[in-house]
Amino acid sequence: MLKPPEHQVAGHQARDGRLGPVVDGSGLFYKPLQSDDRGANELTFYTSFSSEPRIPTRIRSFFPGFQGTQLLHASDGSGLHPHLVLDDLFAGLRLPSVIDLKIGSRTWFPSAPEDYFRKCLAKDRKSTSALLGFRISGLQVNDEDCRWRPSHDEVRQFNAKDVFRILRRFVSSDPASDCEPNCAFASAVYGGAEGVLAQLLELKAWFEDQTLFHFYSASVLVAYDKDGSQDGRRPNRVRVRLVDFAHVLDGNGVIDHNFLGGLCSLIKFISNILKDPDNISNSNAL
Amino acid sequence: MLKPPEHQVAGHQARDGRLGPVVDGSGLFYKPLQSDDRGANELTFYTSFSSEPRIPTRIRSFFPGFQGTQLLHASDGSGLHPHLVLDDLFAGLRLPSVIDLKIGSRTWFPSAPEDYFRKCLAKDRKSTSALLGFRISGLQVNDEDCRWRPSHDEVRQFNAKDVFRILRRFVSSDPASDCEPNCAFASAVYGGAEGVLAQLLELKAWFEDQTLFHFYSASVLVAYDKDGSQDGRRPNRVRVRLVDFAHVLDGNGVIDHNFLGGLCSLIKFISNILKDPDNISNSNAL
Repeated sequence: MLKPPEHQVAGHQARDGRLGPVVDGSGLFYKPLQSDDRGANELTFYTSFSSEPRIPTRIRSFFPGFQGTQLLHASDGSGLHPHLVLDDLFAGLRLPSVIDLKIGSRTWFPSAPEDYFRKCLAKDRKSTSALLGFRISGLQVNDEDCRWRPSHDEVRQFNAKDVFRILRRFVSSDPASDCEPNCAFASAVYGGAEGVLAQLLELKAWFEDQTLFHFYSASVLVAYDKDGSQDGRRPNRVRVRLVDFAHVLDGNGVIDHNFLGGLCSLIKFISNILKDPDNISNSNAL
Repeated sequence: MLKPPEHQVAGHQARDGRLGPVVDGSGLFYKPLQSDDRGANELTFYTSFSSEPRIPTRIRSFFPGFQGTQLLHASDGSGLHPHLVLDDLFAGLRLPSVIDLKIGSRTWFPSAPEDYFRKCLAKDRKSTSALLGFRISGLQVNDEDCRWRPSHDEVRQFNAKDVFRILRRFVSSDPASDCEPNCAFASAVYGGAEGVLAQLLELKAWFEDQTLFHFYSASVLVAYDKDGSQDGRRPNRVRVRLVDFAHVLDGNGVIDHNFLGGLCSLIKFISNILKDPDNISNSNAL
Protein backbone atom coordinates (compact mmCIF):
# COMPACT_ATOMS: atom_id res chain seq x y z
CA MET A 1 0.00 0.00 0.00
CA LEU A 2 1.92 3.05 -1.26
CA LYS A 3 1.28 6.49 0.17
CA PRO A 4 2.98 9.90 0.35
CA PRO A 5 5.66 10.00 3.05
CA GLU A 6 4.32 11.68 6.16
CA HIS A 7 7.57 13.34 7.17
CA GLN A 8 8.81 14.74 3.89
CA VAL A 9 9.64 18.41 4.54
CA ALA A 10 11.07 19.55 1.19
CA GLY A 11 10.82 18.78 -2.51
CA HIS A 12 7.92 17.72 -4.71
CA GLN A 13 5.07 16.12 -2.82
CA ALA A 14 2.78 13.34 -4.06
CA ARG A 15 -0.41 15.17 -3.11
CA ASP A 16 -3.25 16.82 -4.97
CA GLY A 17 -2.58 14.92 -8.15
CA ARG A 18 1.09 15.86 -8.37
CA LEU A 19 4.09 13.67 -9.00
CA GLY A 20 6.10 12.91 -5.88
CA PRO A 21 7.69 10.14 -3.85
CA VAL A 22 5.76 7.44 -2.04
CA VAL A 23 6.62 5.00 0.74
CA ASP A 24 5.46 1.44 1.34
CA GLY A 25 5.48 1.70 5.15
CA SER A 26 7.85 -1.26 5.32
CA GLY A 27 11.10 0.62 4.87
CA LEU A 28 11.20 1.57 1.19
CA PHE A 29 10.96 5.02 -0.38
CA TYR A 30 10.09 5.34 -4.08
CA LYS A 31 11.27 8.53 -5.74
CA PRO A 32 9.96 9.19 -9.27
CA LEU A 33 12.71 9.93 -11.76
CA GLN A 34 12.36 13.54 -12.80
CA SER A 35 11.63 13.77 -16.49
CA ASP A 36 14.41 16.12 -17.55
CA ASP A 37 18.13 15.37 -17.09
CA ARG A 38 17.76 15.43 -13.34
CA GLY A 39 16.19 12.00 -13.09
CA ALA A 40 18.86 10.42 -15.26
CA ASN A 41 21.58 12.23 -13.35
CA GLU A 42 20.33 11.03 -9.98
CA LEU A 43 20.10 7.45 -11.21
CA THR A 44 23.62 7.71 -12.63
CA PHE A 45 24.87 8.95 -9.29
CA TYR A 46 23.23 6.15 -7.27
CA THR A 47 24.49 3.53 -9.70
CA SER A 48 28.01 4.89 -9.72
CA PHE A 49 28.10 5.46 -5.95
CA SER A 50 26.81 1.95 -5.20
CA SER A 51 29.64 0.29 -7.11
CA GLU A 52 32.39 2.75 -6.12
CA PRO A 53 34.95 0.83 -4.05
CA ARG A 54 36.61 3.99 -2.68
CA ILE A 55 33.66 4.96 -0.45
CA PRO A 56 34.44 4.08 3.19
CA THR A 57 31.75 1.95 4.87
CA ARG A 58 31.07 4.59 7.50
CA ILE A 59 30.48 7.20 4.80
CA ARG A 60 28.20 4.90 2.84
CA SER A 61 25.87 4.81 5.84
CA PHE A 62 25.18 8.53 5.41
CA PHE A 63 23.54 7.83 2.04
CA PRO A 64 20.14 6.25 1.46
CA GLY A 65 20.50 2.59 0.51
CA PHE A 66 19.81 2.16 -3.22
CA GLN A 67 17.71 -0.85 -4.26
CA GLY A 68 17.51 -0.20 -7.99
CA THR A 69 14.60 1.18 -10.00
CA GLN A 70 11.02 0.07 -10.38
CA LEU A 71 8.10 1.00 -12.64
CA LEU A 72 5.21 2.17 -10.49
CA HIS A 73 1.96 3.98 -11.08
CA ALA A 74 2.86 7.66 -10.76
CA SER A 75 1.20 9.60 -7.96
CA ASP A 76 -0.12 12.14 -10.48
CA GLY A 77 -2.15 9.46 -12.22
CA SER A 78 -0.11 9.67 -15.42
CA GLY A 79 0.51 5.92 -15.58
CA LEU A 80 3.62 3.84 -15.11
CA HIS A 81 6.71 5.85 -14.25
CA PRO A 82 10.24 4.75 -13.29
CA HIS A 83 11.09 5.28 -9.61
CA LEU A 84 14.32 5.05 -7.68
CA VAL A 85 13.90 2.51 -4.89
CA LEU A 86 15.65 3.83 -1.79
CA ASP A 87 15.66 3.02 1.90
CA ASP A 88 13.09 5.09 3.77
CA LEU A 89 15.19 7.34 6.02
CA PHE A 90 12.39 7.71 8.56
CA ALA A 91 11.56 4.04 8.93
CA GLY A 92 11.15 3.20 12.62
CA LEU A 93 10.66 6.80 13.72
CA ARG A 94 7.22 7.50 15.14
CA LEU A 95 7.30 11.25 15.60
CA PRO A 96 10.45 12.53 13.93
CA SER A 97 11.66 16.08 13.98
CA VAL A 98 13.25 16.72 10.59
CA ILE A 99 15.25 19.51 8.99
CA ASP A 100 16.47 19.65 5.39
CA LEU A 101 19.57 21.83 4.93
CA LYS A 102 20.67 22.53 1.37
CA ILE A 103 24.44 22.78 1.57
CA GLY A 104 26.74 25.08 -0.39
CA SER A 105 26.92 28.82 -0.93
CA ARG A 106 26.02 28.17 -4.56
CA THR A 107 23.71 25.60 -6.06
CA TRP A 108 24.85 26.09 -9.66
CA PHE A 109 27.79 24.23 -11.11
CA PRO A 110 30.43 25.76 -13.38
CA SER A 111 29.16 24.01 -16.52
CA ALA A 112 25.48 24.79 -15.87
CA PRO A 113 23.33 26.11 -18.75
CA GLU A 114 22.81 29.85 -18.57
CA ASP A 115 19.12 29.85 -17.58
CA TYR A 116 19.64 27.28 -14.83
CA PHE A 117 22.69 29.20 -13.60
CA ARG A 118 20.68 32.45 -13.38
CA LYS A 119 17.81 30.78 -11.56
CA CYS A 120 20.10 29.19 -8.99
CA LEU A 121 22.19 32.33 -8.52
CA ALA A 122 19.09 34.43 -7.81
CA LYS A 123 17.89 31.91 -5.21
CA ASP A 124 21.33 31.65 -3.60
CA ARG A 125 21.51 35.43 -3.19
CA LYS A 126 17.94 35.80 -2.01
CA SER A 127 18.13 32.97 0.49
CA THR A 128 20.83 32.47 3.12
CA SER A 129 22.98 30.27 0.86
CA ALA A 130 25.45 32.95 -0.22
CA LEU A 131 25.75 34.40 3.26
CA LEU A 132 25.76 31.29 5.46
CA GLY A 133 26.88 28.62 2.99
CA PHE A 134 23.57 26.75 3.38
CA ARG A 135 19.83 27.31 3.55
CA ILE A 136 16.90 25.56 5.16
CA SER A 137 14.69 23.85 2.57
CA GLY A 138 12.08 22.60 5.01
CA LEU A 139 11.51 21.36 8.54
CA GLN A 140 9.11 20.00 11.06
CA VAL A 141 9.62 19.91 14.80
CA ASN A 142 7.52 17.48 16.77
CA ASP A 143 6.95 17.34 20.46
CA GLU A 144 4.52 15.10 22.35
CA ASP A 145 1.47 17.19 21.72
CA CYS A 146 2.49 19.88 19.28
CA ARG A 147 4.14 20.27 15.93
CA TRP A 148 5.75 23.21 14.18
CA ARG A 149 5.93 22.90 10.43
CA PRO A 150 6.38 26.16 8.56
CA SER A 151 4.95 26.39 5.06
CA HIS A 152 7.06 26.48 1.91
CA ASP A 153 6.49 30.21 1.68
CA GLU A 154 7.64 30.80 5.24
CA VAL A 155 10.72 28.63 4.66
CA ARG A 156 11.62 30.55 1.52
CA GLN A 157 11.74 33.76 3.50
CA PHE A 158 14.05 32.63 6.30
CA ASN A 159 16.91 35.09 6.77
CA ALA A 160 20.21 34.49 8.54
CA LYS A 161 18.79 35.46 11.91
CA ASP A 162 15.90 33.03 11.44
CA VAL A 163 18.34 30.22 10.63
CA PHE A 164 20.34 30.84 13.81
CA ARG A 165 17.13 30.69 15.79
CA ILE A 166 15.65 27.68 14.01
CA LEU A 167 18.74 25.56 14.61
CA ARG A 168 18.09 26.18 18.31
CA ARG A 169 14.33 25.80 18.07
CA PHE A 170 14.84 22.44 16.33
CA VAL A 171 16.18 21.01 19.60
CA SER A 172 13.84 22.83 21.98
CA SER A 173 10.75 21.64 23.78
CA ASP A 174 7.60 23.55 23.04
CA PRO A 175 8.74 24.09 19.40
CA ALA A 176 5.44 25.65 18.35
CA SER A 177 5.92 28.54 20.73
CA ASP A 178 7.35 31.87 19.74
CA CYS A 179 9.27 32.12 23.03
CA GLU A 180 13.05 32.06 23.08
CA PRO A 181 14.09 28.45 22.28
CA ASN A 182 15.24 26.58 25.39
CA CYS A 183 17.52 24.10 23.60
CA ALA A 184 16.33 21.39 26.02
CA PHE A 185 17.47 18.61 23.70
CA ALA A 186 20.61 20.25 22.31
CA SER A 187 23.10 17.97 24.04
CA ALA A 188 21.02 14.82 23.36
CA VAL A 189 20.57 15.58 19.64
CA TYR A 190 23.57 17.66 18.63
CA GLY A 191 26.09 16.32 21.18
CA GLY A 192 27.55 12.95 22.09
CA ALA A 193 29.36 10.27 20.16
CA GLU A 194 26.36 9.52 17.94
CA GLY A 195 24.96 13.04 17.81
CA VAL A 196 24.63 15.41 14.88
CA LEU A 197 27.94 17.19 15.44
CA ALA A 198 29.94 13.96 15.58
CA GLN A 199 28.28 12.75 12.39
CA LEU A 200 28.83 16.04 10.57
CA LEU A 201 32.50 15.95 11.55
CA GLU A 202 32.82 12.49 10.01
CA LEU A 203 31.30 13.81 6.81
CA LYS A 204 33.62 16.82 6.90
CA ALA A 205 36.72 14.63 7.12
CA TRP A 206 35.55 12.76 4.05
CA PHE A 207 34.81 15.94 2.12
CA GLU A 208 38.29 17.27 2.87
CA ASP A 209 39.68 14.32 1.02
CA GLN A 210 37.22 12.98 -1.55
CA THR A 211 37.51 14.21 -5.13
CA LEU A 212 35.05 11.75 -6.68
CA PHE A 213 31.83 13.76 -6.57
CA HIS A 214 30.66 17.36 -6.36
CA PHE A 215 27.28 17.59 -4.65
CA TYR A 216 25.52 20.67 -6.01
CA SER A 217 22.08 21.37 -4.54
CA ALA A 218 22.26 18.34 -2.24
CA SER A 219 20.98 18.43 1.32
CA VAL A 220 21.95 17.24 4.74
CA LEU A 221 18.82 15.81 6.35
CA VAL A 222 18.76 15.63 10.13
CA ALA A 223 16.09 13.64 11.93
CA TYR A 224 15.51 12.47 15.47
CA ASP A 225 12.67 10.96 17.43
CA LYS A 226 11.44 11.60 20.94
CA ASP A 227 9.59 8.32 20.99
CA GLY A 228 10.60 5.01 22.52
CA SER A 229 12.74 6.14 25.42
CA GLN A 230 12.13 5.65 29.13
CA ASP A 231 10.57 9.00 29.90
CA GLY A 232 9.08 9.40 26.48
CA ARG A 233 10.91 12.68 26.08
CA ARG A 234 14.55 11.84 25.67
CA PRO A 235 15.42 12.14 21.98
CA ASN A 236 17.09 9.20 20.35
CA ARG A 237 17.83 7.70 16.97
CA VAL A 238 19.58 10.78 15.65
CA ARG A 239 20.04 10.41 11.91
CA VAL A 240 22.17 12.49 9.56
CA ARG A 241 21.80 11.68 5.87
CA LEU A 242 22.73 13.16 2.52
CA VAL A 243 19.90 13.40 -0.01
CA ASP A 244 19.03 14.83 -3.45
CA PHE A 245 21.62 13.96 -6.03
CA ALA A 246 20.10 15.29 -9.24
CA HIS A 247 23.03 17.69 -9.63
CA VAL A 248 26.02 15.60 -8.60
CA LEU A 249 29.01 15.99 -10.90
CA ASP A 250 32.26 14.14 -11.34
CA GLY A 251 34.82 15.69 -8.98
CA ASN A 252 37.64 15.34 -11.53
CA GLY A 253 40.34 15.32 -8.89
CA VAL A 254 39.10 18.47 -7.09
CA ILE A 255 37.48 18.44 -3.66
CA ASP A 256 33.91 19.73 -3.33
CA HIS A 257 35.00 23.03 -1.74
CA ASN A 258 31.51 24.47 -2.14
CA PHE A 259 29.82 21.73 -0.12
CA LEU A 260 32.71 21.53 2.36
CA GLY A 261 32.61 25.26 3.09
CA GLY A 262 28.87 25.18 3.77
CA LEU A 263 29.21 22.05 5.89
CA CYS A 264 31.90 23.74 8.01
CA SER A 265 29.60 26.73 8.46
CA LEU A 266 26.77 24.49 9.68
CA ILE A 267 29.19 22.66 11.98
CA LYS A 268 30.21 25.96 13.53
CA PHE A 269 26.57 26.86 14.30
CA ILE A 270 25.89 23.48 15.87
CA SER A 271 29.11 23.71 17.91
CA ASN A 272 28.12 27.14 19.17
CA ILE A 273 24.73 25.90 20.31
CA LEU A 274 26.34 22.98 22.11
CA LYS A 275 28.96 25.16 23.77
CA ASP A 276 26.46 27.64 25.02
CA PRO A 277 22.81 26.61 24.58
CA ASP A 278 21.50 29.55 26.62
CA ASN A 279 23.51 32.16 24.80
CA ILE A 280 21.58 33.93 22.13
CA SER A 281 24.45 36.18 21.08
CA ASN A 282 24.88 34.23 17.85
CA SER A 283 21.40 35.03 16.75
CA ASN A 284 21.94 38.62 17.69
CA ALA A 285 25.13 39.01 15.67
CA LEU A 286 23.40 39.46 12.36
CA MET B 1 65.33 55.53 -1.68
CA LEU B 2 61.88 54.19 -2.66
CA LYS B 3 61.44 51.95 -5.68
CA PRO B 4 58.91 49.49 -7.10
CA PRO B 5 59.14 46.07 -5.41
CA GLU B 6 61.12 43.68 -7.58
CA HIS B 7 59.12 40.58 -6.68
CA GLN B 8 55.56 41.81 -6.87
CA VAL B 9 53.68 39.34 -9.08
CA ALA B 10 50.10 40.66 -8.95
CA GLY B 11 48.19 43.91 -8.50
CA HIS B 12 48.87 47.45 -9.64
CA GLN B 13 52.53 48.15 -10.34
CA ALA B 14 54.37 51.42 -9.78
CA ARG B 15 55.84 51.51 -13.27
CA ASP B 16 55.37 53.61 -16.37
CA GLY B 17 53.82 56.48 -14.48
CA ARG B 18 51.16 54.40 -12.73
CA LEU B 19 50.20 54.33 -9.09
CA GLY B 20 51.54 51.31 -7.21
CA PRO B 21 53.37 50.20 -4.11
CA VAL B 22 57.01 50.96 -3.37
CA VAL B 23 59.60 49.51 -1.01
CA ASP B 24 62.43 51.16 0.87
CA GLY B 25 64.80 48.19 0.66
CA SER B 26 65.08 48.16 4.46
CA GLY B 27 62.02 46.07 5.21
CA LEU B 28 59.06 48.35 4.59
CA PHE B 29 56.42 48.18 1.87
CA TYR B 30 54.29 51.23 1.07
CA LYS B 31 50.93 50.52 -0.51
CA PRO B 32 49.01 53.53 -1.84
CA LEU B 33 45.44 53.72 -0.55
CA GLN B 34 43.14 53.09 -3.48
CA SER B 35 41.00 56.12 -4.10
CA ASP B 36 37.57 54.50 -3.98
CA ASP B 37 36.20 52.64 -0.94
CA ARG B 38 38.83 49.96 -1.28
CA GLY B 39 41.60 52.06 0.24
CA ALA B 40 39.47 53.05 3.22
CA ASN B 41 38.30 49.45 3.66
CA GLU B 42 41.82 48.09 3.68
CA LEU B 43 42.94 50.68 6.22
CA THR B 44 39.92 49.87 8.38
CA PHE B 45 40.81 46.20 8.26
CA TYR B 46 44.47 46.71 9.24
CA THR B 47 43.48 49.04 12.06
CA SER B 48 40.80 46.69 13.38
CA PHE B 49 42.96 43.58 12.97
CA SER B 50 45.94 45.20 14.74
CA SER B 51 43.93 45.92 17.86
CA GLU B 52 41.81 42.74 17.83
CA PRO B 53 42.73 40.73 20.95
CA ARG B 54 41.11 37.51 19.67
CA ILE B 55 43.75 36.89 16.97
CA PRO B 56 46.18 34.15 18.10
CA THR B 57 49.85 35.17 17.90
CA ARG B 58 50.66 32.38 15.45
CA ILE B 59 47.88 33.56 13.13
CA ARG B 60 49.01 37.16 13.36
CA SER B 61 52.34 36.13 11.86
CA PHE B 62 50.57 35.19 8.62
CA PHE B 63 49.61 38.83 8.09
CA PRO B 64 51.93 41.66 7.03
CA GLY B 65 52.92 43.79 10.00
CA PHE B 66 51.06 47.11 9.90
CA GLN B 67 53.05 50.24 10.78
CA GLY B 68 50.36 52.88 10.17
CA THR B 69 49.96 55.23 7.24
CA GLN B 70 52.26 57.79 5.69
CA LEU B 71 51.92 60.53 3.08
CA LEU B 72 54.36 59.86 0.26
CA HIS B 73 54.86 61.12 -3.24
CA ALA B 74 52.75 58.84 -5.40
CA SER B 75 54.54 56.75 -7.99
CA ASP B 76 52.31 58.19 -10.73
CA GLY B 77 53.65 61.67 -10.07
CA SER B 78 50.28 62.95 -8.84
CA GLY B 79 51.73 64.39 -5.64
CA LEU B 80 51.35 63.40 -2.00
CA HIS B 81 49.18 60.34 -1.46
CA PRO B 82 48.42 58.34 1.71
CA HIS B 83 50.11 54.94 1.85
CA LEU B 84 49.71 51.95 4.15
CA VAL B 85 53.06 51.17 5.74
CA LEU B 86 53.49 47.40 5.88
CA ASP B 87 56.33 44.99 6.46
CA ASP B 88 57.94 43.95 3.19
CA LEU B 89 57.14 40.25 2.88
CA PHE B 90 60.18 39.59 0.71
CA ALA B 91 62.74 41.31 2.92
CA GLY B 92 65.83 39.12 3.22
CA LEU B 93 65.03 36.96 0.20
CA ARG B 94 67.53 37.30 -2.63
CA LEU B 95 65.92 35.31 -5.38
CA PRO B 96 62.40 34.42 -4.23
CA SER B 97 59.97 32.24 -6.08
CA VAL B 98 56.53 33.72 -5.47
CA ILE B 99 52.94 32.72 -6.21
CA ASP B 100 49.83 34.75 -5.48
CA LEU B 101 46.70 32.61 -5.05
CA LYS B 102 43.38 34.42 -4.81
CA ILE B 103 41.28 32.27 -2.50
CA GLY B 104 37.54 31.59 -2.69
CA SER B 105 35.22 30.30 -5.36
CA ARG B 106 33.64 33.74 -5.43
CA THR B 107 35.23 37.14 -5.02
CA TRP B 108 31.97 39.07 -4.61
CA PHE B 109 30.30 39.49 -1.24
CA PRO B 110 26.55 39.22 -0.62
CA SER B 111 26.07 42.98 -0.12
CA ALA B 112 28.18 43.99 -3.14
CA PRO B 113 26.80 46.65 -5.52
CA GLU B 114 25.33 45.16 -8.68
CA ASP B 115 28.04 46.27 -11.12
CA TYR B 116 30.87 45.05 -8.89
CA PHE B 117 29.01 41.77 -8.32
CA ARG B 118 28.65 41.23 -12.08
CA LYS B 119 32.31 42.00 -12.76
CA CYS B 120 33.51 39.60 -10.05
CA LEU B 121 31.08 36.86 -11.05
CA ALA B 122 32.23 36.97 -14.67
CA LYS B 123 35.88 36.70 -13.60
CA ASP B 124 35.14 33.88 -11.15
CA ARG B 125 33.42 31.86 -13.87
CA LYS B 126 36.01 32.60 -16.54
CA SER B 127 38.97 31.85 -14.31
CA THR B 128 39.46 28.73 -12.18
CA SER B 129 37.87 30.30 -9.07
CA ALA B 130 34.43 28.72 -9.43
CA LEU B 131 35.84 25.33 -10.36
CA LEU B 132 38.84 25.02 -8.05
CA GLY B 133 37.95 27.47 -5.28
CA PHE B 134 40.98 29.64 -6.07
CA ARG B 135 42.89 31.14 -8.95
CA ILE B 136 46.46 32.14 -9.62
CA SER B 137 46.84 35.94 -9.76
CA GLY B 138 50.54 35.95 -10.59
CA LEU B 139 53.79 34.13 -10.08
CA GLN B 140 57.50 34.01 -10.67
CA VAL B 141 59.73 30.99 -10.31
CA ASN B 142 63.43 31.63 -9.93
CA ASP B 143 66.25 29.21 -10.25
CA GLU B 144 69.97 29.98 -10.20
CA ASP B 145 70.19 31.10 -13.78
CA CYS B 146 66.67 31.24 -15.08
CA ARG B 147 63.34 32.74 -14.24
CA TRP B 148 59.81 31.99 -15.36
CA ARG B 149 57.39 34.84 -14.95
CA PRO B 150 54.24 34.61 -17.05
CA SER B 151 52.63 37.85 -18.16
CA HIS B 152 49.32 39.11 -16.78
CA ASP B 153 47.62 37.98 -19.98
CA GLU B 154 49.04 34.47 -19.66
CA VAL B 155 48.02 34.29 -16.00
CA ARG B 156 44.48 35.37 -16.81
CA GLN B 157 44.12 32.45 -19.18
CA PHE B 158 45.25 29.67 -16.83
CA ASN B 159 42.74 26.84 -16.77
CA ALA B 160 42.37 24.11 -14.15
CA LYS B 161 44.90 21.88 -15.86
CA ASP B 162 47.42 24.72 -15.96
CA VAL B 163 46.94 25.32 -12.22
CA PHE B 164 47.60 21.66 -11.39
CA ARG B 165 50.77 21.84 -13.42
CA ILE B 166 51.95 25.21 -12.13
CA LEU B 167 51.70 24.13 -8.51
CA ARG B 168 54.19 21.41 -9.45
CA ARG B 169 56.31 23.65 -11.64
CA PHE B 170 56.56 26.15 -8.77
CA VAL B 171 58.70 23.64 -6.85
CA SER B 172 60.66 22.23 -9.77
CA SER B 173 64.16 22.93 -10.96
CA ASP B 174 64.47 24.25 -14.48
CA PRO B 175 61.17 26.18 -14.09
CA ALA B 176 61.54 27.96 -17.42
CA SER B 177 61.41 24.68 -19.30
CA ASP B 178 58.28 23.28 -20.85
CA CYS B 179 59.25 19.74 -19.77
CA GLU B 180 57.19 17.83 -17.24
CA PRO B 181 57.90 19.47 -13.83
CA ASN B 182 60.24 17.34 -11.70
CA CYS B 183 59.03 18.61 -8.30
CA ALA B 184 62.65 18.56 -7.11
CA PHE B 185 61.89 20.95 -4.23
CA ALA B 186 58.39 19.72 -3.35
CA SER B 187 59.30 18.17 -0.03
CA ALA B 188 61.58 21.06 0.96
CA VAL B 189 59.00 23.75 0.13
CA TYR B 190 55.61 22.12 0.57
CA GLY B 191 56.57 19.53 3.22
CA GLY B 192 58.06 19.58 6.70
CA ALA B 193 57.11 21.27 9.94
CA GLU B 194 57.70 24.77 8.53
CA GLY B 195 56.62 24.05 4.98
CA VAL B 196 53.69 25.39 3.00
CA LEU B 197 51.31 22.54 3.85
CA ALA B 198 51.91 22.83 7.61
CA GLN B 199 51.34 26.57 7.45
CA LEU B 200 48.18 26.24 5.36
CA LEU B 201 46.83 23.72 7.86
CA GLU B 202 47.37 26.20 10.68
CA LEU B 203 45.44 28.79 8.71
CA LYS B 204 42.69 26.26 8.00
CA ALA B 205 42.22 25.49 11.69
CA TRP B 206 41.77 29.19 12.35
CA PHE B 207 39.30 29.63 9.48
CA GLU B 208 37.19 26.74 10.79
CA ASP B 209 36.67 28.72 13.94
CA GLN B 210 37.01 32.45 13.33
CA THR B 211 33.86 34.46 12.65
CA LEU B 212 35.44 37.92 12.87
CA PHE B 213 36.29 38.59 9.24
CA HIS B 214 35.29 37.46 5.76
CA PHE B 215 38.20 37.76 3.34
CA TYR B 216 36.73 38.34 -0.12
CA SER B 217 39.27 38.65 -2.93
CA ALA B 218 42.20 38.16 -0.56
CA SER B 219 45.23 36.09 -1.52
CA VAL B 220 47.56 33.54 -0.03
CA LEU B 221 51.06 34.51 -1.05
CA VAL B 222 53.69 31.79 -1.00
CA ALA B 223 57.38 32.61 -1.30
CA TYR B 224 60.63 30.75 -0.85
CA ASP B 225 64.26 31.36 -1.63
CA LYS B 226 66.91 29.07 -2.98
CA ASP B 227 69.65 31.37 -1.77
CA GLY B 228 71.75 31.13 1.38
CA SER B 229 71.92 27.39 1.86
CA GLN B 230 74.95 25.15 1.71
CA ASP B 231 74.67 23.96 -1.84
CA GLY B 232 72.99 27.11 -3.04
CA ARG B 233 70.05 25.06 -4.25
CA ARG B 234 68.20 23.88 -1.19
CA PRO B 235 65.12 26.07 -0.76
CA ASN B 236 64.60 27.73 2.58
CA ARG B 237 62.71 30.53 4.25
CA VAL B 238 59.32 29.32 3.12
CA ARG B 239 56.78 32.08 3.74
CA VAL B 240 53.01 31.88 3.62
CA ARG B 241 51.18 35.17 4.01
CA LEU B 242 47.70 36.59 3.55
CA VAL B 243 47.47 39.80 1.53
CA ASP B 244 44.97 42.19 -0.09
CA PHE B 245 42.26 43.21 2.31
CA ALA B 246 40.31 45.81 0.34
CA HIS B 247 37.20 43.59 0.49
CA VAL B 248 37.28 42.24 4.03
CA LEU B 249 33.89 42.30 5.75
CA ASP B 250 32.72 41.78 9.29
CA GLY B 251 32.07 38.06 9.80
CA ASN B 252 28.99 38.69 11.96
CA GLY B 253 29.24 35.37 13.73
CA VAL B 254 29.54 33.28 10.53
CA ILE B 255 32.73 31.53 9.43
CA ASP B 256 34.30 32.52 6.11
CA HIS B 257 33.07 29.36 4.35
CA ASN B 258 34.04 30.79 0.95
CA PHE B 259 37.69 31.31 1.88
CA LEU B 260 37.83 28.10 3.91
CA GLY B 261 36.49 25.99 1.04
CA GLY B 262 39.06 27.38 -1.38
CA LEU B 263 41.84 26.97 1.16
CA CYS B 264 40.91 23.30 1.65
CA SER B 265 40.98 22.82 -2.11
CA LEU B 266 44.48 24.29 -2.32
CA ILE B 267 45.57 22.14 0.63
CA LYS B 268 44.37 19.04 -1.19
CA PHE B 269 46.45 19.89 -4.28
CA ILE B 270 49.57 20.52 -2.21
CA SER B 271 49.02 17.27 -0.27
CA ASN B 272 48.69 15.33 -3.50
CA ILE B 273 51.95 16.71 -4.85
CA LEU B 274 53.71 15.82 -1.60
CA LYS B 275 52.27 12.32 -1.53
CA ASP B 276 53.23 11.56 -5.05
CA PRO B 277 55.47 14.17 -6.69
CA ASP B 278 56.06 12.05 -9.79
CA ASN B 279 52.43 11.28 -10.37
CA ILE B 280 50.87 13.50 -12.95
CA SER B 281 47.45 11.88 -12.76
CA ASN B 282 46.04 14.93 -10.99
CA SER B 283 46.84 17.17 -13.88
CA ASN B 284 45.35 14.63 -16.24
CA ALA B 285 42.07 14.38 -14.39
CA LEU B 286 40.59 17.54 -15.81
